[in-house]
Amino acid sequence: MINTLYLPELREMLAAKDEAGLREFCEALHAGRTAEFMEGLTPLEAWGVLRAASSQARVEIFGYLEEEVQVGILESGDPAELAPLIADMPPDDRVDLLHQTDSSIVETVLSLIPTEERRDILRLRAYPEETAGAMMTTEIAKLPENLTVSEALKEIGRQAKDLETIYYIYIVDEEDHLRGLVSTRQLVTQLGKPETLLSELMKRDLVTVSATDDQEAVAEKVADFDFLAIPVVDAEWHLVGIITYDDVIDVLQEEATEDAHLAGAVQPLEEGYLATRLFLLTRLRAGWLTVLFAAAILTALLLQSYDAALEEVTWLVWFVPLVISSGGNTGSQSATLIIRALTTKEIMPSDWSIVLWREVLMGCLLGAFLATIGYVAACFLAPSAMAALVIPVTIFLVVICGTILGAMLPLLFQRMGLDPALMSTPFVAGIIDIVGIVLYMNVAIWLL
Amino acid sequence: MINTLYLPELREMLAAKDEAGLREFCEALHAGRTAEFMEGLTPLEAWGVLRAASSQARVEIFGYLEEEVQVGILESGDPAELAPLIADMPPDDRVDLLHQTDSSIVETVLSLIPTEERRDILRLRAYPEETAGAMMTTEIAKLPENLTVSEALKEIGRQAKDLETIYYIYIVDEEDHLRGLVSTRQLVTQLGKPETLLSELMKRDLVTVSATDDQEAVAEKVADFDFLAIPVVDAEWHLVGIITYDDVIDVLQEEATEDAHLAGAVQPLEEGYLATRLFLLTRLRAGWLTVLFAAAILTALLLQSYDAALEEVTWLVWFVPLVISSGGNTGSQSATLIIRALTTKEIMPSDWSIVLWREVLMGCLLGAFLATIGYVAACFLAPSAMAALVIPVTIFLVVICGTILGAMLPLLFQRMGLDPALMSTPFVAGIIDIVGIVLYMNVAIWLL
Repeated sequence: MINTLYLPELREMLAAKDEAGLREFCEALHAGRTAEFMEGLTPLEAWGVLRAASSQARVEIFGYLEEEVQVGILESGDPAELAPLIADMPPDDRVDLLHQTDSSIVETVLSLIPTEERRDILRLRAYPEETAGAMMTTEIAKLPENLTVSEALKEIGRQAKDLETIYYIYIVDEEDHLRGLVSTRQLVTQLGKPETLLSELMKRDLVTVSATDDQEAVAEKVADFDFLAIPVVDAEWHLVGIITYDDVIDVLQEEATEDAHLAGAVQPLEEGYLATRLFLLTRLRAGWLTVLFAAAILTALLLQSYDAALEEVTWLVWFVPLVISSGGNTGSQSATLIIRALTTKEIMPSDWSIVLWREVLMGCLLGAFLATIGYVAACFLAPSAMAALVIPVTIFLVVICGTILGAMLPLLFQRMGLDPALMSTPFVAGIIDIVGIVLYMNVAIWLL
Repeated sequence: MINTLYLPELREMLAAKDEAGLREFCEALHAGRTAEFMEGLTPLEAWGVLRAASSQARVEIFGYLEEEVQVGILESGDPAELAPLIADMPPDDRVDLLHQTDSSIVETVLSLIPTEERRDILRLRAYPEETAGAMMTTEIAKLPENLTVSEALKEIGRQAKDLETIYYIYIVDEEDHLRGLVSTRQLVTQLGKPETLLSELMKRDLVTVSATDDQEAVAEKVADFDFLAIPVVDAEWHLVGIITYDDVIDVLQEEATEDAHLAGAVQPLEEGYLATRLFLLTRLRAGWLTVLFAAAILTALLLQSYDAALEEVTWLVWFVPLVISSGGNTGSQSATLIIRALTTKEIMPSDWSIVLWREVLMGCLLGAFLATIGYVAACFLAPSAMAALVIPVTIFLVVICGTILGAMLPLLFQRMGLDPALMSTPFVAGIIDIVGIVLYMNVAIWLL
């Protein structure tokens, strides 16, 4: 989705080295909008535009550029010019970015960044991806508890330019132990009593996370409590960082994409559909396809082993896709419902008995319903109404198996400490294909 | 996931009418945590606990209770006691709640609420669900532009107790036209120059939404720009409401659930898996299953029509599930990737040519890969290596059809103004089953 409105103008200004024009473009709008208008520029062009901006506008707009453009700029620009930009970026964003960038370039840029900032980057880079540590920022509004409301507001005003958020102010002791939280809202409400001490206002019962917590769990916590930010503490209760709502939104979107991809049997992509190289994407798809294909080869071997029965009663063959897709579709539904309910923490593996009970009941109802339609269809194609009974009986059984397997496999995966989303729709369908054929052939042999 | 730690104690206090104990329980912790500890209580019990709380704690905890408990309380409590609670709730949350509650009870409670609040509820209730109007709150920090920084801070401190957020302050003229935005952060930073006018500080280039915009589009906008809130304006640029980040997070989660359900061919649930009545859930599942079943009956009819060929070359039958699942699985992958890329606005229907090109290429690669494995398997089961060629040729073609259909159908749906997620994984798989059988039989007739 590229807005090409400004691109020709920007390219003209770049060619004419019209620094004043470019600077005006960078300052006129909200940085997010400016970045939108720059979509479609090459990294080199984008960097040309940003070089004309003030250092503040530059870092803001840079933050809204797409990741591939950011990486492109880092990998093609002059490290001496890039270092101040990296030093100005929010700590959490720059660590994400450096993770994506060629490491030799990262080392060069890092060597040009002031020692203190560099240490901060190295510390955050040490946390594994997808953990709270990798999400958090280290720029925190921190104050001691013995300040008054009016002192606190002035001090926060002074700190503000370096901080991502000033709306949650964390109260710490001399050794950075987290003691409490005061919101800027409380301070503003208390303006009538400017001498009130922070220690009187602060909340002491804080919800915190640890730097090694999984990002998904952190995001769910912030979302549940409607927090603007959540503090990250270590084992000694030192305040090591905060995670803000905007990063939580990013993580929730990322996780939704990951789950959607798994549900479609695609290994989740790091980047977008168009941004992922064709061969990489093909490889990511081929993995799961091979697993599913192996299951499908089993169906061929199974059908071969029932060859005698099939040659005798040829009309049975016509219903093979119908029978297995009935099970596959109900199984997919159950798996989808259970995986999503596990993700949103509505159910836990320990709820398996109530889930099983519901799925068996729904399996009976849906099975009876589909079996009825199936019987009508079978009566037209089978030699007798009696013989046609094979179809509804099989459908009924296979639908119940579908609901049970579809619901229980994700629960089993979760219990085993694996991602239940791995037990995805096509995977469940693949297993049920095999079960379906075995059931079908045995019902047929038994009834005919 | 119920935390049963406090339940026996709470029930004991309720039985003993221990108001002081209950009140202490309600005030001691963050309201979100208190609500967590109350999970597992019946609505009647929960209301018993809340009645002991101060009116402020009561409305806060109530806001964190699960929706079914909130509705249960409304439908069983005394309207005269409930009216003040509803009057204190944030406007956006209470409208959502009243939408879910029995309408005769809503009318009784509404009649007991002060006129101005009642009008606000009725106005917000008039917006269709899933629109910006239904998401927004009408409690907005609003100031005229001729105030100074210090006047503004004092005034916001006075208004704070009725507002959901005080961090974005909207600058309006006498007729409530939106003129600009000042953040509390700017005010705090300017404390050194308390005489600065808001008109000098305010940002005039605002990103806004209209009350009739779809909630998903609004959520994406707020998420992209990392806003704390976004203003809702009418055609004359009157400020009618704001939408805050926490509601955006809720909508993003809601939409992710909806898309996940559609991808599994389940009509999206209004409530959770366990909270939805069994018969309703069965009905929601039966709808899509019937559509898919109808497609599967077509496969049976198709196979019947190719009966002569199948009776002659029986081994072909064994590969029917393999052939159609190859197409179904690659088609599901393509549909998943494209639907998600459309949802995250990474691609637009107008990108169809680049998508088609990529999918054809990937289809060729994946098709060649699966065809090779398929050929090896077929050589074992088919009478000759020449005859076995039917399998790889069909797989190759069906995989390409799968990628093309899987990618193009969601784009087509989006272009037609429908939700691309409707063209969900099992639906695409169902269509490809039919295409697969036709291809298979024709390749077989041609080659053998």
